[in-house]
Amino acid sequence: MTRIMELFQIKYPIIQGGMIWCSGAKLAAAVSNAGALGLIGASSMKPPLLTSQLNKMKDLTDKPWGVNLPVFSQYADEQVKIIMDSGAKIVFTSAGSPKTYTKILKANGIKVVHVVPSPELAVKCELAGVDAIVAEGFEAGGHNGIDEITTMVLIPQVVKAVSIPIIAAGGIALGRQMAAAMSLGAEAVQLGTRFAATKESAAHDNYKDALLKAKSGSTRLMMKKLLPVRILKNKFYEQIETCEQRGCSKEELSEIMGKNRAMQGIFEGDVVNGKVELGQVSASIEDIPSAGEVVALLIKEYNQTITQLTKY
Amino acid sequence: MTRIMELFQIKYPIIQGGMIWCSGAKLAAAVSNAGALGLIGASSMKPPLLTSQLNKMKDLTDKPWGVNLPVFSQYADEQVKIIMDSGAKIVFTSAGSPKTYTKILKANGIKVVHVVPSPELAVKCELAGVDAIVAEGFEAGGHNGIDEITTMVLIPQVVKAVSIPIIAAGGIALGRQMAAAMSLGAEAVQLGTRFAATKESAAHDNYKDALLKAKSGSTRLMMKKLLPVRILKNKFYEQIETCEQRGCSKEELSEIMGKNRAMQGIFEGDVVNGKVELGQVSASIEDIPSAGEVVALLIKEYNQTITQLTKY
Repeated sequence: MTRIMELFQIKYPIIQGGMIWCSGAKLAAAVSNAGALGLIGASSMKPPLLTSQLNKMKDLTDKPWGVNLPVFSQYADEQVKIIMDSGAKIVFTSAGSPKTYTKILKANGIKVVHVVPSPELAVKCELAGVDAIVAEGFEAGGHNGIDEITTMVLIPQVVKAVSIPIIAAGGIALGRQMAAAMSLGAEAVQLGTRFAATKESAAHDNYKDALLKAKSGSTRLMMKKLLPVRILKNKFYEQIETCEQRGCSKEELSEIMGKNRAMQGIFEGDVVNGKVELGQVSASIEDIPSAGEVVALLIKEYNQTITQLTKY
Repeated sequence: MTRIMELFQIKYPIIQGGMIWCSGAKLAAAVSNAGALGLIGASSMKPPLLTSQLNKMKDLTDKPWGVNLPVFSQYADEQVKIIMDSGAKIVFTSAGSPKTYTKILKANGIKVVHVVPSPELAVKCELAGVDAIVAEGFEAGGHNGIDEITTMVLIPQVVKAVSIPIIAAGGIALGRQMAAAMSLGAEAVQLGTRFAATKESAAHDNYKDALLKAKSGSTRLMMKKLLPVRILKNKFYEQIETCEQRGCSKEELSEIMGKNRAMQGIFEGDVVNGKVELGQVSASIEDIPSAGEVVALLIKEYNQTITQLTKY
C-alpha cells in the first residue's frame, strides 16, 4: 500500500484528473466507485453549478472523492468556500501558488494536493504544507509548465526533491505506463485524457471522436507566451501557430484565444474552431469504455507488466 | 533475455548512444567491456579519424560493439565503406531515411538499427528491413523529431506499430528510468547524456562541468525550423531564442548557427558560445564516474526498482 492509497483511503493508486468540461459528478463518482479517486473539475463551474455537482456527488458515491480547483479561476475564492461547506475531504489545487489556499483548506480538515511541472515548484508546495504533489509532465493535455520537462525525467527529480508522496501525471493511459510511473517513484498515477474518453465523461461526442482519431503528432503545447496548453492541431491551433511563427504579441494571441474556447471545443463539440485539450496519449486510446472498465483494465495490465519484468 | 540482448550478444540490455564529440573508441570500448553495447559516434569523424578509431576499437575490446552513423553526414557514403571494411558487425543509422544504407549494410552481414522519433517512421524502418529500432523521446539531448513525442508516450506506440524489438532512448540515466522504459515494452535502453558524463567521454571538462550544473529547466529543444536539437540554454541558445521569438527566417537561423558549433561547445569547451547538446536528464546527473561504474549502478538500481514494485 502506497502513502497515497493510505492518505485517500483508496483501493487502487489511480486518480482521475480534474478536467474542464469533462469531469462532473457522473465521471468522478464512477471512478470512485471503481476503487480509484474521482475528482470533480471545478474549473469552469460557476458557484451554483459547483454546489449542485457537489450535492450530486454525495448521492452517487460513499467512497472517497475530491475536487480539482485551478487557483486562477475567477470564482476561486467563492469555490473554496462552497467546497469547504460541502464536506469535501480532498482538494487538488493547480495553476497558481500552493500558498493561496493550502492553509485554509487544511485548517478545515481537508487533504490538499498541488499540481506542479517542476522540482523547484514541488519544494515550494512542501513548504506550503500540502499533503502530496501531482508532478505533471510535458506530454499531459491541457495547461502545462514552461520548462517542458517530461514525465520520465520529472518524476525522479521531484521524488528526490521532497519527502511527501508524488502522484505522476502526463503520458499515462495504459497499464504499461502506470508501471513505468510507479518505477519512476510515483505512489499513484493521475490520468486525464484516458478518463475523458469514457462513457461517463461530460465531453461532447465530437470531442470523444476527435480524441479517438488523434495520432501521435496530433497535439501540441501552444500559447507559451501566455499560459501554455496542449491542444489538438485543428483550425484554432493553426491560427495560433501562424501567429506564433511570425512572432506576434501576447495581445494578438489573447485576441485569437477569445473567450470560452474550451467550452466550445470540449462541451459544445466544435472541434474545428474550439480549444480541444488533449494529452499525447490520445494516440493510444481507441475506445470509449466505462470509467470502471478503465480502472479494471489498467490494474490488470499493470499487474501483467510488472510480472514480466526480469532481473539482470 | 530480451531479443536485443540476443541480437547483439550482450550481457545487459544497455546501449551507449553514439554522441558527437563524446563517444570515440575509448568510451565505446569501456561500455562494451562492461557488458553493455558501446557505439562509436561517427558523426563528426572525417574518414581518416574514423578509420583510426575503428582500428583502436578492435585493440581495446573483444566484446560486441557498433557504430552510429547519421545519414545526413557529408562523409556518409565514404564512412559506410570504411565501416564495412573495418569488420564492424553492428551499425545504428539516424537522422535520415532507413532506406539509404540498410540494404548494403545487411548484405555485408551487419546488424542494422535505425533511430526514430515517431511510430510512423518506425513502420518505415521495419519495411526497410532493419533488425531493431531505437525510439527516442522529446527529452533526449541532441537532434530530435518535430512531433515532440515523449518517451513515456512513444515507446508503447512503437511497440504496437512494429514486430521488431525496440530500444528506448530519451530521459534515461537512472535505474528507475531503465525500469520504466522496460515496463513500457522496450527490450533495451540507450543512454547518451549519462555516458557523456563519464571519465572515458571525449567531451571537454567544461562541457562535463556544465552538464553537472544543469537544472531541470536548463535545456530546450530549438531550431525547429531547421533540424530540431536539444541544447543547454547558454548565450548561443539566447541568440536563437531571440531570433525565433521574433519569427525570423531559416536563413537567419542558419547564419546564427554558423559552422562547427557542436565542436566548439562539446570538444573545445566553449560552453557559452558553442552548441552544448544535453538531454533533460542532465539535471539528475551529479558525478563523473567511469563508464563501467555507470553500467553496474544502472543494473543495481534497476534490479532494486523492479523488486519493489507490488501488485494491486
